[in-house]
Amino acid sequence: MRIGIVAPSTPILPATAERVTALAAERFADVELVFHPQCFLSHRHFAGEDRVRAAAFAEVADDPGFDALWFARGGYGSCRIAEDVIAGLGPAARDKTYLGYSDAGYILAGLYRAGFPHLAHGPMPNDLKREGGSAAVERALAWLTRRDPAALEPGLGSAPAAAFNVTVFSQLLGTALEPDLGGHVLMLEDVSEHMYRTDRALFHITGNTAVRDLAGIRLGRCSEVPENDPDFGASEEEIFRYWCDRAGIPYLGRADIGHDAANKVVPFGAA
Amino acid sequence: MRIGIVAPSTPILPATAERVTALAAERFADVELVFHPQCFLSHRHFAGEDRVRAAAFAEVADDPGFDALWFARGGYGSCRIAEDVIAGLGPAARDKTYLGYSDAGYILAGLYRAGFPHLAHGPMPNDLKREGGSAAVERALAWLTRRDPAALEPGLGSAPAAAFNVTVFSQLLGTALEPDLGGHVLMLEDVSEHMYRTDRALFHITGNTAVRDLAGIRLGRCSEVPENDPDFGASEEEIFRYWCDRAGIPYLGRADIGHDAANKVVPFGAA
Repeated sequence: MRIGIVAPSTPILPATAERVTALAAERFADVELVFHPQCFLSHRHFAGEDRVRAAAFAEVADDPGFDALWFARGGYGSCRIAEDVIAGLGPAARDKTYLGYSDAGYILAGLYRAGFPHLAHGPMPNDLKREGGSAAVERALAWLTRRDPAALEPGLGSAPAAAFNVTVFSQLLGTALEPDLGGHVLMLEDVSEHMYRTDRALFHITGNTAVRDLAGIRLGRCSEVPENDPDFGASEEEIFRYWCDRAGIPYLGRADIGHDAANKVVPFGAA
Repeated sequence: MRIGIVAPSTPILPATAERVTALAAERFADVELVFHPQCFLSHRHFAGEDRVRAAAFAEVADDPGFDALWFARGGYGSCRIAEDVIAGLGPAARDKTYLGYSDAGYILAGLYRAGFPHLAHGPMPNDLKREGGSAAVERALAWLTRRDPAALEPGLGSAPAAAFNVTVFSQLLGTALEPDLGGHVLMLEDVSEHMYRTDRALFHITGNTAVRDLAGIRLGRCSEVPENDPDFGASEEEIFRYWCDRAGIPYLGRADIGHDAANKVVPFGAA
């Protein structure tokens, strides 16, 4: 199995790529990882200019020699290229599996809207840098190579699912990337956001009429929350319950996803 | 003229209210300012619980003895009460003038959508605490009491206008508070946001189809921008030009609004 890796937002270090490659060679004999050189470029905030990141993504996505496209990491930047890149993809791109989360959500959303069948929210190569990160990378590879059920978010049920970062999902509503999630269980996680921002984003998300057709919302982890001054006085779970209740969306409990090494895989669509 | 002041998001200090009252008494003989006691309440993040803030807003808005409702300050919280409060307002509320900005934008947006005719984006009592803030408060009172043309944003033209904080406007898109701004010049300002967040919000705003009917966008000041690491490499004006160009929305230059003492008044709708 050949997995191509690109970085549509921010760059990773060559040393990280080497460690991920070594880990894959040791634990997954049948896998060849190909880090596109674009992963290591740096242009201002981004892993290369928009057109360079877009070209690298399309090159890997359209190459029938790759079975999967793995997002190298999150950060910020894929919303700048997503719409144009997706519109230009050929038939080989549709057969491929795509795995990533966080900022990768813009592209996953657009691909899902475009009917791509093999998409998942889950760990990325740069997660190796987290504490215990090798488990995250191994989980991603176990799912990519053999659809290991142990890699999956444990609460997946019969309803179709999708998973996103709270802020990313909020910021793609109403754009050409917004997928139709009617009847879906939507799992949401967030990182590095003040609690009042999470509250505000939930106002925005649950206040969007299209979102109200969800089968329900499940809450992943909200990590590295900056101090709120004064204390916000409500936990992320209280916030989610409050806004789901107001919007008439079932709140379905916690989800085992987040910006951490325990982040499980959530395939988009029916299980 | 009687002006009622409420705080639908976060509280102000009684000492600030006293200073604003003294300034008004000294410079505007015909004005009576009435700070609703709710302005000084504190409940977690907010100036009182949601129902308390909502009740204070409705009490002042529905009271025919007040000519204007002045938002005490921004912060966060008015999105939690806006939809319900507006739905319950009576006829006296419609005759009133409403002035505020920042978080007040949620309520101004919803009132504009509901057809309220006298709304404006401009300075608030708590701006007195800014350097040179008395000029901002005097400007607001000069506009509230005698529609002083010198208080107005100098670039107002024949097209109807509206003004919002970038983040606030982004987070109300698609909700029951989003106004129809077709044919409007939209002025946007922001504060305390990383440049990558402003870029992301502009993706969201200009990517919303309804927004693309604007006559154009003008850029207010983006102040207190936290350091971007690495440097974002584009100024707020470059960001605005980029996204307006992508969306086919005319970029109409700078606007004299922002989170500062120079913040001018922008009446919503036709000049």
